[in-house]
Amino acid sequence: MNPITLFRSLLRQDSPTILKSYIFEALAQRGIQYTDPRIQNCVAKLDAFSDVDSIDEGLFVACVQADVETLGHLLLGDLVIPDFGHFKAVLTEIFEDLKENTAGNVATYIPQLAHVNPEYWGLSVCTVDGQQFAIGDSETPYCVQSTCKPVNYSLVLETLGVETVHRYIGREPSGRGFNELTLNHEGRPHNPMINSGAIMACSLICPELPLEERLGVVLDTWQKLTGGYRPGFSLEVYLSEKRTADRNFALGYFMREKKAFPEGIDLHQVLDFYFQCCAIEMTCRTQAVVAGSLANGGVCPITGERVFSRSTAKDCLSLMYSCGMYDFSGEFAFTVGLPAKSSVSGALMVVVPGVCGITVWSPRLDRYGNSERGLDFCNRLVKAFGFHMYDRLLKPNGAVG
Amino acid sequence: MNPITLFRSLLRQDSPTILKSYIFEALAQRGIQYTDPRIQNCVAKLDAFSDVDSIDEGLFVACVQADVETLGHLLLGDLVIPDFGHFKAVLTEIFEDLKENTAGNVATYIPQLAHVNPEYWGLSVCTVDGQQFAIGDSETPYCVQSTCKPVNYSLVLETLGVETVHRYIGREPSGRGFNELTLNHEGRPHNPMINSGAIMACSLICPELPLEERLGVVLDTWQKLTGGYRPGFSLEVYLSEKRTADRNFALGYFMREKKAFPEGIDLHQVLDFYFQCCAIEMTCRTQAVVAGSLANGGVCPITGERVFSRSTAKDCLSLMYSCGMYDFSGEFAFTVGLPAKSSVSGALMVVVPGVCGITVWSPRLDRYGNSERGLDFCNRLVKAFGFHMYDRLLKPNGAVG
Amino acid sequence: MNPITLFRSLLRQDSPTILKSYIFEALAQRGIQYTDPRIQNCVAKLDAFSDVDSIDEGLFVACVQADVETLGHLLLGDLVIPDFGHFKAVLTEIFEDLKENTAGNVATYIPQLAHVNPEYWGLSVCTVDGQQFAIGDSETPYCVQSTCKPVNYSLVLETLGVETVHRYIGREPSGRGFNELTLNHEGRPHNPMINSGAIMACSLICPELPLEERLGVVLDTWQKLTGGYRPGFSLEVYLSEKRTADRNFALGYFMREKKAFPEGIDLHQVLDFYFQCCAIEMTCRTQAVVAGSLANGGVCPITGERVFSRSTAKDCLSLMYSCGMYDFSGEFAFTVGLPAKSSVSGALMVVVPGVCGITVWSPRLDRYGNSERGLDFCNRLVKAFGFHMYDRLLKPNGAVG
Amino acid sequence: MNPITLFRSLLRQDSPTILKSYIFEALAQRGIQYTDPRIQNCVAKLDAFSDVDSIDEGLFVACVQADVETLGHLLLGDLVIPDFGHFKAVLTEIFEDLKENTAGNVATYIPQLAHVNPEYWGLSVCTVDGQQFAIGDSETPYCVQSTCKPVNYSLVLETLGVETVHRYIGREPSGRGFNELTLNHEGRPHNPMINSGAIMACSLICPELPLEERLGVVLDTWQKLTGGYRPGFSLEVYLSEKRTADRNFALGYFMREKKAFPEGIDLHQVLDFYFQCCAIEMTCRTQAVVAGSLANGGVCPITGERVFSRSTAKDCLSLMYSCGMYDFSGEFAFTVGLPAKSSVSGALMVVVPGVCGITVWSPRLDRYGNSERGLDFCNRLVKAFGFHMYDRLLKPNGAVG
Repeated sequence: MNPITLFRSLLRQDSPTILKSYIFEALAQRGIQYTDPRIQNCVAKLDAFSDVDSIDEGLFVACVQADVETLGHLLLGDLVIPDFGHFKAVLTEIFEDLKENTAGNVATYIPQLAHVNPEYWGLSVCTVDGQQFAIGDSETPYCVQSTCKPVNYSLVLETLGVETVHRYIGREPSGRGFNELTLNHEGRPHNPMINSGAIMACSLICPELPLEERLGVVLDTWQKLTGGYRPGFSLEVYLSEKRTADRNFALGYFMREKKAFPEGIDLHQVLDFYFQCCAIEMTCRTQAVVAGSLANGGVCPITGERVFSRSTAKDCLSLMYSCGMYDFSGEFAFTVGLPAKSSVSGALMVVVPGVCGITVWSPRLDRYGNSERGLDFCNRLVKAFGFHMYDRLLKPNGAVG
Repeated sequence: MNPITLFRSLLRQDSPTILKSYIFEALAQRGIQYTDPRIQNCVAKLDAFSDVDSIDEGLFVACVQADVETLGHLLLGDLVIPDFGHFKAVLTEIFEDLKENTAGNVATYIPQLAHVNPEYWGLSVCTVDGQQFAIGDSETPYCVQSTCKPVNYSLVLETLGVETVHRYIGREPSGRGFNELTLNHEGRPHNPMINSGAIMACSLICPELPLEERLGVVLDTWQKLTGGYRPGFSLEVYLSEKRTADRNFALGYFMREKKAFPEGIDLHQVLDFYFQCCAIEMTCRTQAVVAGSLANGGVCPITGERVFSRSTAKDCLSLMYSCGMYDFSGEFAFTVGLPAKSSVSGALMVVVPGVCGITVWSPRLDRYGNSERGLDFCNRLVKAFGFHMYDRLLKPNGAVG
Repeated sequence: MNPITLFRSLLRQDSPTILKSYIFEALAQRGIQYTDPRIQNCVAKLDAFSDVDSIDEGLFVACVQADVETLGHLLLGDLVIPDFGHFKAVLTEIFEDLKENTAGNVATYIPQLAHVNPEYWGLSVCTVDGQQFAIGDSETPYCVQSTCKPVNYSLVLETLGVETVHRYIGREPSGRGFNELTLNHEGRPHNPMINSGAIMACSLICPELPLEERLGVVLDTWQKLTGGYRPGFSLEVYLSEKRTADRNFALGYFMREKKAFPEGIDLHQVLDFYFQCCAIEMTCRTQAVVAGSLANGGVCPITGERVFSRSTAKDCLSLMYSCGMYDFSGEFAFTVGLPAKSSVSGALMVVVPGVCGITVWSPRLDRYGNSERGLDFCNRLVKAFGFHMYDRLLKPNGAVG
Repeated sequence: MNPITLFRSLLRQDSPTILKSYIFEALAQRGIQYTDPRIQNCVAKLDAFSDVDSIDEGLFVACVQADVETLGHLLLGDLVIPDFGHFKAVLTEIFEDLKENTAGNVATYIPQLAHVNPEYWGLSVCTVDGQQFAIGDSETPYCVQSTCKPVNYSLVLETLGVETVHRYIGREPSGRGFNELTLNHEGRPHNPMINSGAIMACSLICPELPLEERLGVVLDTWQKLTGGYRPGFSLEVYLSEKRTADRNFALGYFMREKKAFPEGIDLHQVLDFYFQCCAIEMTCRTQAVVAGSLANGGVCPITGERVFSRSTAKDCLSLMYSCGMYDFSGEFAFTVGLPAKSSVSGALMVVVPGVCGITVWSPRLDRYGNSERGLDFCNRLVKAFGFHMYDRLLKPNGAVG
């Protein structure tokens, strides 16, 4: 796109200049944040002219030229959610409605979860075009807990390939109420979205590195998926998890007894590493970008960086769809029809493939360990927008490339 | 669309007329059969002028006027598979390759299955636009067996609604290797794609009708789904099934003991009816249209008749996706990523939602009871066309309405 | 023994004669009934002299000569319970105490059980020497229900041998809470004391006879075990059982599907026959003799007739010990330590091997289906007499032959 | 008994003296060892007269007076196996026959077991009267492994009582093939004869003592049960067990997660202690005395010391009977009908309650982990002597005290 064309298309009425603020307003209306990495170069130039409010063609071209394709797309192109204002309004209404849902209880097995404010309630979205929306407690950090599972699974798929990974981990639902301590008929964890499979995935992440460097690899991955946000880490949660991890130790020893692990791993290191991954801290806003990266086939929407291959994203979404919501996964797949992953901290990532990633956070859980408001939100979401996968695929002229 | 415009767009070079045969060739190239119900009115008129080969504008308008929208779409519109010739060529190549796959064995529990020619091999497709392709033994009748399950399930959804139906039948995978004789933790069959759930579905189909009329209801449904083909019925298979149905009788009595059935049903009638449904006869070509109707959200592609609501089709596809391939369902969902239903007769319906339905038939089965060639075909299909659901949904600009 | 010696040992003080009534009193004090078959010959002779009260040596010898060994043993020999008066007194005290136990509920799945008087309470004993004691509702008939299982199992052992029988039925506990609908890892019922195994046993009883003659074989066996009492039969219970037998039909079909039955059996006949066996009627008093026959190694204590071989009795007691009390069997074996079989009619046969058989009857059941008073009685019994098998075997000089 | 009477009853023909050697021969013929603790006092006195071979009445009285009751019983009394020579002859024949049985394989999960000589074959008996017989490799030490379970279970019964112990451990068979990693429906190990239950028992042994003192308590108990033999300990086996104990660690963590342990225990200490108990070393000859102490109701036959109460012995034998032979326990109870406990080292303790304890040792195991020759021996034993519990109890006049 020619920057002059872009400039002219932004002109209003007879004015020969554009208000600088208007550009950012126009972007904001379409869901593009002032902080979006894709426009930082351009923003810096425009902001350098801090004494100028009205931009003429020459200055515009000078500032925009290097980023004109991106900016043009963000301002004028066909974004995946064309009417972002309407989208936000609907989500806001749902968000407000759900405040009244105070069902469920916070997890209590470690004090850090038991003492969290149950009223926390955040909702954030990031589309495959990087359109973002955040409301409520979207900037408050929480531990990712089980939502680390899809990230770690994708990471090992990326480094080892699907064949190798699934020599160690199954890829099927285990059946509701199936004793989680049991392995599948090949002596492997049923899938990477349950604890046994997630521990196994941890054993496959850079086992050649010293333990203290492995978490760095994972944090780097999260950072890329968020488009630059360095995740926090809760030492208290890590230590508490480790101290109360009887089930995970049982799983670990059980799998070692079944010779399920790759040769040469150190079980206690693997478990340590797993507890560390669970204690990574995110916010709703940043984790929505992570979900958005999965929705975008492995490419971070706000940086354009490919973090995972499309094939990895596909495999991860397949298993989030069938296994991501604990024992409620089957029912969730039927009624909501979207890949998702929940955690005991109340965080819930849900992915609308090809459209957007969403993270909601509300610490009160139902008896399956899924966030009550989170589930409620998903049901409202798919009804409002027809996001159930089969609704989308069955739409006339909907899905064929 | 104006019939004159259509006429003119079909003209070649300087000729003022169109060869009648050319019209049918043009349709055929796009996958539209001469027998397609949507063009029968028009075909009849054109064929009435049996002495005329070259049609001029006046005659064209006279013959086509009433069906100009349909005909225009079929001849010039954007069909879901734009290059149907290429599509057929790829499928033909796969079809030929798979002839070499002679793995597996025919089912042997009844003589009618045991004595079937194991070399039968048919493949048929019907897109949501009614584009059809059939190759091999596509006109040889076989019993639908377990492929009756999605049809019966859809039928009860349609008549009773999802709430009522799922008071009697679950909607979750049961976990591989889970004893099929066990009910879920609420004392219900796990889902309608396994025998217990299919028997339960049969108990919900017009229980108020005398037994001899219920099959008619089911046959009518199949007929609509095929766009007019009246299914056959194998008395021998029905009687054989009934005589060797120990497991199904066990399931039936077990469910009755658990008070799982609606009140007032006659168990032996329900089982009888179930065996009748399994003995319905289809051909590959006609059952591909059935699959196409599911792919088309419940509307028969070649008649335009809505047989099931979109919501019913959605629910049916959800459960075919997670539960349609016996104990191989989880693995199939991961690798193939399409709703499907297989049967011991070797028939396999696979649905590409919003695109097409496919039925393949090859009697040799693997240890799970799925057609060996059928599975092989599905793997080849998704690789060739990127039909895995998450591949489609993750395609850039692919899926958003 | 010389009849004169016997006569003289019965003389009191200086009298040269014995009161006829004294003989029967002496027998009664040792638990020998006036109706005992072993003394009927002698009783008839003595009673023939209805005008004589005091019997002199000549008459005594005449009447007693043919039975002097038996009579001598019963009057003077070492009987297994030497002080039968004390034994009765203790049992009577337990019996009275347990009247206060009104816990539990009668079975309700058929009206004949639901409407039984819950207050019925009977207790009868028969030692291996034929010493008998009965108190409470010991003459009221009830259906044997599951207490038919040890009799039928013994019957097939007797006719087919242990090798053949256990090709069709296992001989191990199934584990508490193990789904009763599951077969063992060889596809056979776990043992003959649970429904599946009992149905299998029925398939092995004279399959060559017409159905209507098979029950006669079973009734004959019961009659011999009771020492002559012809059992009754409840047509109502038979028909009710048959009508509400969903679980048993499920079991039957499931086993037929697993090819667990011998070739050529007619499943519906086998089930019919099983329901008939359950509807056989006994009384506490007569069923105590049945238990006594098992305690006596297969020989009826009051007729001396060998009904089962010692090996058959041994095998039957082994499985009553480990599997006779439904899901409570393991706990019962630990705490009570005696072979027993309970039934939903509230009857409970318990065997003190080598000592006596006991039958108690009280219709109120606990959640496992065992008679509440029956269980209570067993606990009191073993405490009072040290009858727990390991208590007896560990007694100094107790058990070695 | 008067020592003079004893002396005279030992005199032969006209000799006024007894050969000293004759006394020991007479004892040996009845199975009483020269080393028997009960005669050591007397032996010491007799041996002090090393220059005297023929003992006269005066010397006899002087030497024997203090032990005359014991010596009289051993020389002249009714011992539980009256014809010990015949008994030994039969056992010797069986022992020789079984040398030909080379079925099975030694355990391989730790090198100490993998490298054991598979040909080891020892057999020892100790009756409740202290009659002993040993043949083959009866003096070669091996690790007790799972045969420590009945000892530890008895020890905790003794110290805590049956009520307390069974709040932590169940007392029922778990059903063959039931996943050993599963707890019973109350979240407790099924019984103390399987690993989970044995670990739990270890948690109940003197938890107030420092770890290093707990093993002493257990060794003291073994020593008393053997009549004075201080058990050995294999440091190599202990360390190997600990290093390869994945399943036991899994069980331990699983139980801790279920809050199955008493409060305040240190899981790693408990497991350590369990591995130590398994590494205790016995010989066939000494472990036969341990089995004899159980057969004798908790009293060591060769010292007369009560180690366990009769009630404890009873409870221990109950569970050895139903649960002592791994997944073969049910079949073993049916066919052999004796309490027993086997181990992966190939040792097998079998108890004939009230008669004798036997230990056989042969390292080759069947697929259940039971010694092949051991099982074979048990079958031969019960056939030869009618030792099946129900055979003994059903013997005429056999069992009533």
